[in-house]
Amino acid sequence: MSQDKRSRSSKLADTLGSDVDFVLFGALGDLSQRKLYPALYQLDRENLLADNTRLLGVARQEVDVEGFRSRVEASLKEYIKRDELDAEVVERFLNRLDYRCVDATQVEGYAGIREWRQGAGDRPMVVYLAVGASLYGDICRHLEDSGSLDESARVVVEKPIGHDLESSDEINDAIGAVFPESRIYRIDHYLGKETVQNLIALRFANPLFGTQWNQNHISHVEITVAEKVGIEGRWGYFDQAGQLRDMVQNHLLQLVCLIAMDPPANLDADAIRDEKVKVLKALKPFTDDMLGTDVVRGQYIAGTSDGQSVPGYLEEPDANTASHTETFVAMKTEVSNWRWAGVPFYLRTGKRMPEKLSQIVIHFRQQPHYIFDPDQRSLAANKLVIRLQPDEGIALQVLTKDSGLDKGMRLRPGPLHLDFNNAFAKTRIPDAYERLLLEVMKGQQYLFVRRDEVEHAWKWCDSLIEAWQERDEPPRRYPSGSWGPVASIAMISQDGRSWYEDY
Amino acid sequence: MSQDKRSRSSKLADTLGSDVDFVLFGALGDLSQRKLYPALYQLDRENLLADNTRLLGVARQEVDVEGFRSRVEASLKEYIKRDELDAEVVERFLNRLDYRCVDATQVEGYAGIREWRQGAGDRPMVVYLAVGASLYGDICRHLEDSGSLDESARVVVEKPIGHDLESSDEINDAIGAVFPESRIYRIDHYLGKETVQNLIALRFANPLFGTQWNQNHISHVEITVAEKVGIEGRWGYFDQAGQLRDMVQNHLLQLVCLIAMDPPANLDADAIRDEKVKVLKALKPFTDDMLGTDVVRGQYIAGTSDGQSVPGYLEEPDANTASHTETFVAMKTEVSNWRWAGVPFYLRTGKRMPEKLSQIVIHFRQQPHYIFDPDQRSLAANKLVIRLQPDEGIALQVLTKDSGLDKGMRLRPGPLHLDFNNAFAKTRIPDAYERLLLEVMKGQQYLFVRRDEVEHAWKWCDSLIEAWQERDEPPRRYPSGSWGPVASIAMISQDGRSWYEDY
Repeated sequence: MSQDKRSRSSKLADTLGSDVDFVLFGALGDLSQRKLYPALYQLDRENLLADNTRLLGVARQEVDVEGFRSRVEASLKEYIKRDELDAEVVERFLNRLDYRCVDATQVEGYAGIREWRQGAGDRPMVVYLAVGASLYGDICRHLEDSGSLDESARVVVEKPIGHDLESSDEINDAIGAVFPESRIYRIDHYLGKETVQNLIALRFANPLFGTQWNQNHISHVEITVAEKVGIEGRWGYFDQAGQLRDMVQNHLLQLVCLIAMDPPANLDADAIRDEKVKVLKALKPFTDDMLGTDVVRGQYIAGTSDGQSVPGYLEEPDANTASHTETFVAMKTEVSNWRWAGVPFYLRTGKRMPEKLSQIVIHFRQQPHYIFDPDQRSLAANKLVIRLQPDEGIALQVLTKDSGLDKGMRLRPGPLHLDFNNAFAKTRIPDAYERLLLEVMKGQQYLFVRRDEVEHAWKWCDSLIEAWQERDEPPRRYPSGSWGPVASIAMISQDGRSWYEDY
Repeated sequence: MSQDKRSRSSKLADTLGSDVDFVLFGALGDLSQRKLYPALYQLDRENLLADNTRLLGVARQEVDVEGFRSRVEASLKEYIKRDELDAEVVERFLNRLDYRCVDATQVEGYAGIREWRQGAGDRPMVVYLAVGASLYGDICRHLEDSGSLDESARVVVEKPIGHDLESSDEINDAIGAVFPESRIYRIDHYLGKETVQNLIALRFANPLFGTQWNQNHISHVEITVAEKVGIEGRWGYFDQAGQLRDMVQNHLLQLVCLIAMDPPANLDADAIRDEKVKVLKALKPFTDDMLGTDVVRGQYIAGTSDGQSVPGYLEEPDANTASHTETFVAMKTEVSNWRWAGVPFYLRTGKRMPEKLSQIVIHFRQQPHYIFDPDQRSLAANKLVIRLQPDEGIALQVLTKDSGLDKGMRLRPGPLHLDFNNAFAKTRIPDAYERLLLEVMKGQQYLFVRRDEVEHAWKWCDSLIEAWQERDEPPRRYPSGSWGPVASIAMISQDGRSWYEDY
């Protein structure tokens, strides 16, 4: 037991260093239950929560502490694998929890938070806003006005931050009126995925890739983020947003940034984020004449998913049957700088695709001269495939000699696999939220989105949305269970390329 | 059966095209039994021998055809895996065999060969000299004088071709007096290994490697060919040669050529061999002042092998106890041309090493700037490991992020494996001799050593041997079962490097 204690302390010294007080708004909501409690539990199980770290759940519902703890326990039982549920850790974790019923819009209720914090000493406070962005301003202001905050307080906010540059500015202003940028943690959970962080190691620790990561050696980049699900009961919300705002503005652009950024001088949060912002600023803005060739908007119609008939977007419950909102978008863009000029970035994302798949494919250029059998010429390019979902992993496609005796010098494409499940057999791949919560506790911001990133991402998306609005064309239809409108295939084919298929 | 026949014919059209008559000198010798019959049997089993391909065994011993066939059958049973022994194919193969008793030094006996060839039409003849090089001249001359040859005849010869430039010239002259270079096939069986041929695919079909294959991106190259065995009863022969002549002049230099050659304009045998010769010509010659720093000669003393005590080189049966012959050599050399200037090639080969291991390690340069934890800096270089023995395969070492939650942005070296056994699960890896015999039958020379390659390889080795002879120093001792003299470690350490260890 004392040995266990010692190894635990030494780990903490490396990572956390101190206890933290979490204040979680939206404590009974979906995100908290599905992601945050399971993630904090896993951190506790791995001895990465300091001994006196506590969490105060805040929501409107009247529940007592025991009621709250039993709701959290139920979440853990639902979302944690049975063999990772350790009764002792569950008990330790539940004992960290407290609860206050607070109407977030009324400053009066915040006294309970201030009171809970009394005697916390220099223990930093982390306010997690797992609520709609419309409440961010109220909560920040009331926290301050009620005297609940001190110099240590960090705030964690979730997407979406607004629906365009203007509305995101309003939200960021409201948060910024209370918290300095250095204590604001904007989550894009893609940044917490192991494979996404691995992009940094892959690009900057490996000269083999690092020296080739530019327009001299890379011909094009593909990013696919396909969802299998449809709208799932949130038609009204989604129809106001559309796939561009819901997926591209945040997740896909974050991936573009990590792939395209110049090497930062060091791993400091701002060194990395300065480089990411440079990418966003260099994204070629959309103009009206590009709509016909470089962008495809789609909307799913009825079709099948996993062999079941499913309704079209306009036939979903609550649908406005005249909606022109896109549930799919494919686009060809470019990072107009020295590193990437002339290298297309093909992005596509949609709902009701045949499968859940997030992957990046880096296509290396062909060499100018080719000496193998002419009919194999189309094989001859290296690809780096970085898969985020369903199975995280990295594979490098190389060509080798086919070993069949009857083959002569024939080529054979084969992957060099870096399979996380295999390579790291002993370590579970942590969920994105575990990594992100850990970094918040450590006060490290490099996996969080800085305000100017949000702004430049919106600026670019707004240029496209404006061009769309001027045209006001209906989106192209695609059947549920397909890879999107045929036009999205044509978009990439016109460049003599195709979407990488290895589903 | 007829379907089987058809698929067989179509394969042949692609590969052989026609029947061949083999005439095998040394038909009862070790090489024939261990390598050539098993290889030809495997080709037959894979339907790669044309229907009327025949083989005439030639040796001094009086055996009748049945006796010869049963000796060959015994070889197959010894050297072919049981589940690859197909009774029907064995019978088919044995029926191709005939035998003549010939004293190779006497022209009279060759009439039997000429007679066997009668009625062969335009079927090409392949003369395989699985005998000592001292007989090559006699055999070629007598074949010609006896009228056994025609314009189609190819000759296959085995190493060693001489023991220095002068003696190799004599042998090559004798063969060349009868056969034009375009019909001489000099075997270095390393060139028949799948992994060695794969170097061509790897380098020239993969832009990722092709564009980095030079002194800008590669810091150094290592080649290790370690033998576990000692002298194995051939002390007298070996003591005249030594490890430099026995292994470096042929196998190691062939590997150097394939790694270092400029890309050939096409895959024609002479396009490839022209480039290989350029490498040999560019090898930095040895001078006396390099002996102390760039070359280590070793000789094994008693020690252990597989846990058994084994005698030293000077204690072996028949040993001359004053011998200075090396059983180990390590050297640092350079290919002095635009591609490789300043990139050391570290070579080492020896007998009585801890294990049988042949591998090439390409070390890529570090990048000039490094942003990860300083204590991990020594990890930060990519390596391409090409293993020929014991398990053929290719692995690329890359650095990825360690996925442990408590690790932060820590690196982890991991191999991207291209394991032939795995990748080509359905195809057996053919033995080098299968590939080489197949290429002889197809009349393709790219896997065989051209005369000028032999000459330039000897020229370079001779420069070293001469420097050694002038000094006449005894070789350094190393215990059997070690990786050679300590000086061979010091040789590479003085450059701040070490032999790659992943045994």
